[in-house]
Amino acid sequence: MKSFKQLCATIAGHPWFMNIIIVLIFINAVIVGLETYPAILGNYGSWLYIGDRILLWIFTLEIIIRLIGSRSIGSFFKEPWNVFDFLIVAAGHILVGSYYVTVLRILRVLRVLRAVSVIPSLRKMVNALLLTIPSMGTIMLLLGLFFYIYAVIGTMMFQTIAPEYFGTLHDSLLSLFQVITLESWASGVMRPILEEDPSSWWYFVTFIIIGAFVIINLFVGVIVNNVEEASREETPTPTDIKLAEVQKELKEIKKLLKEKSN
Amino acid sequence: MKSFKQLCATIAGHPWFMNIIIVLIFINAVIVGLETYPAILGNYGSWLYIGDRILLWIFTLEIIIRLIGSRSIGSFFKEPWNVFDFLIVAAGHILVGSYYVTVLRILRVLRVLRAVSVIPSLRKMVNALLLTIPSMGTIMLLLGLFFYIYAVIGTMMFQTIAPEYFGTLHDSLLSLFQVITLESWASGVMRPILEEDPSSWWYFVTFIIIGAFVIINLFVGVIVNNVEEASREETPTPTDIKLAEVQKELKEIKKLLKEKSN
Amino acid sequence: MKSFKQLCATIAGHPWFMNIIIVLIFINAVIVGLETYPAILGNYGSWLYIGDRILLWIFTLEIIIRLIGSRSIGSFFKEPWNVFDFLIVAAGHILVGSYYVTVLRILRVLRVLRAVSVIPSLRKMVNALLLTIPSMGTIMLLLGLFFYIYAVIGTMMFQTIAPEYFGTLHDSLLSLFQVITLESWASGVMRPILEEDPSSWWYFVTFIIIGAFVIINLFVGVIVNNVEEASREETPTPTDIKLAEVQKELKEIKKLLKEKSN
Amino acid sequence: MKSFKQLCATIAGHPWFMNIIIVLIFINAVIVGLETYPAILGNYGSWLYIGDRILLWIFTLEIIIRLIGSRSIGSFFKEPWNVFDFLIVAAGHILVGSYYVTVLRILRVLRVLRAVSVIPSLRKMVNALLLTIPSMGTIMLLLGLFFYIYAVIGTMMFQTIAPEYFGTLHDSLLSLFQVITLESWASGVMRPILEEDPSSWWYFVTFIIIGAFVIINLFVGVIVNNVEEASREETPTPTDIKLAEVQKELKEIKKLLKEKSN
Repeated sequence: MKSFKQLCATIAGHPWFMNIIIVLIFINAVIVGLETYPAILGNYGSWLYIGDRILLWIFTLEIIIRLIGSRSIGSFFKEPWNVFDFLIVAAGHILVGSYYVTVLRILRVLRVLRAVSVIPSLRKMVNALLLTIPSMGTIMLLLGLFFYIYAVIGTMMFQTIAPEYFGTLHDSLLSLFQVITLESWASGVMRPILEEDPSSWWYFVTFIIIGAFVIINLFVGVIVNNVEEASREETPTPTDIKLAEVQKELKEIKKLLKEKSN
Repeated sequence: MKSFKQLCATIAGHPWFMNIIIVLIFINAVIVGLETYPAILGNYGSWLYIGDRILLWIFTLEIIIRLIGSRSIGSFFKEPWNVFDFLIVAAGHILVGSYYVTVLRILRVLRVLRAVSVIPSLRKMVNALLLTIPSMGTIMLLLGLFFYIYAVIGTMMFQTIAPEYFGTLHDSLLSLFQVITLESWASGVMRPILEEDPSSWWYFVTFIIIGAFVIINLFVGVIVNNVEEASREETPTPTDIKLAEVQKELKEIKKLLKEKSN
Repeated sequence: MKSFKQLCATIAGHPWFMNIIIVLIFINAVIVGLETYPAILGNYGSWLYIGDRILLWIFTLEIIIRLIGSRSIGSFFKEPWNVFDFLIVAAGHILVGSYYVTVLRILRVLRVLRAVSVIPSLRKMVNALLLTIPSMGTIMLLLGLFFYIYAVIGTMMFQTIAPEYFGTLHDSLLSLFQVITLESWASGVMRPILEEDPSSWWYFVTFIIIGAFVIINLFVGVIVNNVEEASREETPTPTDIKLAEVQKELKEIKKLLKEKSN
Repeated sequence: MKSFKQLCATIAGHPWFMNIIIVLIFINAVIVGLETYPAILGNYGSWLYIGDRILLWIFTLEIIIRLIGSRSIGSFFKEPWNVFDFLIVAAGHILVGSYYVTVLRILRVLRVLRAVSVIPSLRKMVNALLLTIPSMGTIMLLLGLFFYIYAVIGTMMFQTIAPEYFGTLHDSLLSLFQVITLESWASGVMRPILEEDPSSWWYFVTFIIIGAFVIINLFVGVIVNNVEEASREETPTPTDIKLAEVQKELKEIKKLLKEKSN
């Protein structure tokens, strides 16, 4: 039994194992892409379905091998990417049936995301990106408050003037998201309202100025911080190398002084 | 009397006091959100109104407790956030009456902003954001000059061609704000004018290039500066740690030398 | 004569002199702003004209005082901002007459720009902004090449399909500027062309990707560079302060050693 | 033979040689520009054609001189810019004939790009820009995955609702590129779909938020990294200069100590 476990670990650690899985994920991506063309789906739909089922079973086998090959079940599921792999593949088995067709199709597409969990450089990068999210927590809360207050005021003021943009609170939130991306904020949203309520420009102008100010602070702050941290952890700077030389020199001088004292 | 003051200070400083206020602000936010749905306002309007009045009196009590609990009235109002809390709540009492309905409704929404004054991390972040404003003073003045000059020239040139965008000086300022956000600047604003005055492209192109240049300098300059300051004040760099070691070593060498001299 | 020169220098250097000029420039700005309202221009046009003439003569007097007060005429015109002041005011005198009405009106507006030459902090900031331009020379040449090549190709390919956007070479250049600002590049420019020439998407997509890449490099590169330089020249960092202490300590140790040698 | 090779090397290295080629490339640019105006092409088309043929032969001569003047043919083609020059000019000879008119015309325009290979500062800058591409490999792969997954889901969901935007997989990819540039993403793409499928907003909102987050990380990360590297390699900082002084001082102290020991 132990030798079987070791065999699995050897297989799971072999570079060819990873390469084959990457190729299979790529084939999976091509299959879900081809399925979007009605003509191809009509003629070769059953072949694509069979290919998909085979891929699902191979991925299942892959995860079983990696699961057995790992030190323990606990250590395997400690890594969030393994949990992601497991859920994506398990859901493909559980949801088989005619009821969840669209869910299953989206699951098949999400299987392409497994490329992130399999390719180390991608996994490292996504981990780094995800790590920047917690540091954005406070500013996200601030942004949420800011959006909510403007959405409530907007709904109160423009509910009857522009019901397609500010009819309900969730419409307003979506419209404010559109405004903050600066997409048709004036030509589409503000100018028609301005004709009915000529003083409404302050609502949009202050929203854009404050919002842009906060969002720019959000992104630049977090990212520059991260870049700085990265560069700090990296290779020692020339200054640090010189300082190390200075410290070495000082130790020698101390030695010389102590030798003389004796 | 003194013990009552101390009791208030203890209550105001208790973590549960803050947590309850945060929950109540959240309830306040939900109420003002629900009020925007006409159906809910029609059926439960009086309940929402009662809830709002109760919240206002609780917030009044909260501020009285914090006011009594503070060292002195002067020290309480020295903190701008306390002044903000006080004004928001006081205005809710003063403006009661049928005349100021919309003002009162906006006041109720602004009460949600009290989350900033109550949650310490939010308050710290907003203070930091507000601190970047003074350093933008000069560039804001420059931007104001730049907008004003272009607005006057634009009004002079396009007043009759495009009255909806450049009819008056304040129309022009709003249109230039739209142009600087790049929203429909060509398809909506410039191209119709271009058909009447084919040489007007220089007005928009130079405005966008100069404006983008100044604004990018404005934001990047100020923000990067702030980030740099923040990282400078933070934890000592490895270079600083090594330097401290060097200084320590030098002191020991000096001691050794002095000891020998004696 | 010499004492008169000294008097002028004293006046020109007095803080009140600058403050009065700033106020007058502000009044000048208000006048050119009021002139854009046809109703005001109709009723008070002659008063505004008289005010403008008085301001022009005061500014003339101001420049004469500063010219006499300066060490020499050469040193006065060495400062580009003085040349700017001189030209703006001189042109106001030279172009008097009914022929150059629009030029004169724009000159009056540009007089507001004198705020930059008079307010020291504004002048310093604009000088700093202008200094970043030479370092952008090469990338501007690259961007020019890039625009020109795409404009020629675009004119060749879409001249007959979309004459309003790519009819002539200068039309194409303006359209490409619109595309690079991402304004209606798809809905307005690309999609109508795409219907006639389905393979034209590569033209717009590559233009946007390459253009965005180059422009982002242009702005971020130059600005971050400038910020770095600024922060390098500024106040010494804690590291530098510690290093200065280390150097001081070393000198004392050397002294101690030399004293013992003697 | 050797002296002829040396003569070619001398000519190719002469500053006038480069200046003449730059002028000729500029003339080439003017010719391809003039050719886009139908009136000019009709009247002077044959002159422009002759000018173009002469330029092609001069450029051919230029490359032959540089090829002979280089140490060896291998070393000449090692430099990618020389390969680019050679291909552009060679293709001009090979594709002569009536079949490849549009290809030839685009080749003539691309000859303007030779300015990059001829002007040293431009070549240096483009090389620097190209060097940033490999470091973007992983994030480009991530972005590709992200686009592909959203395109497949978008085609699956909106194929029948909005065939002009999400009809096929490549239509979806182009529409998503439009959405990520924020061009008409709401007014043009999302709002018409929203009327049929009111829950589709999450598709666009999550795409924009995740996409903006990844792209901002992509650009800022790479560029700031490059700027940092550049500034690290550049002139020594004041800190480094002081450190060098400290090292010098330490050496002198060591000397003093050793002298005394002897």
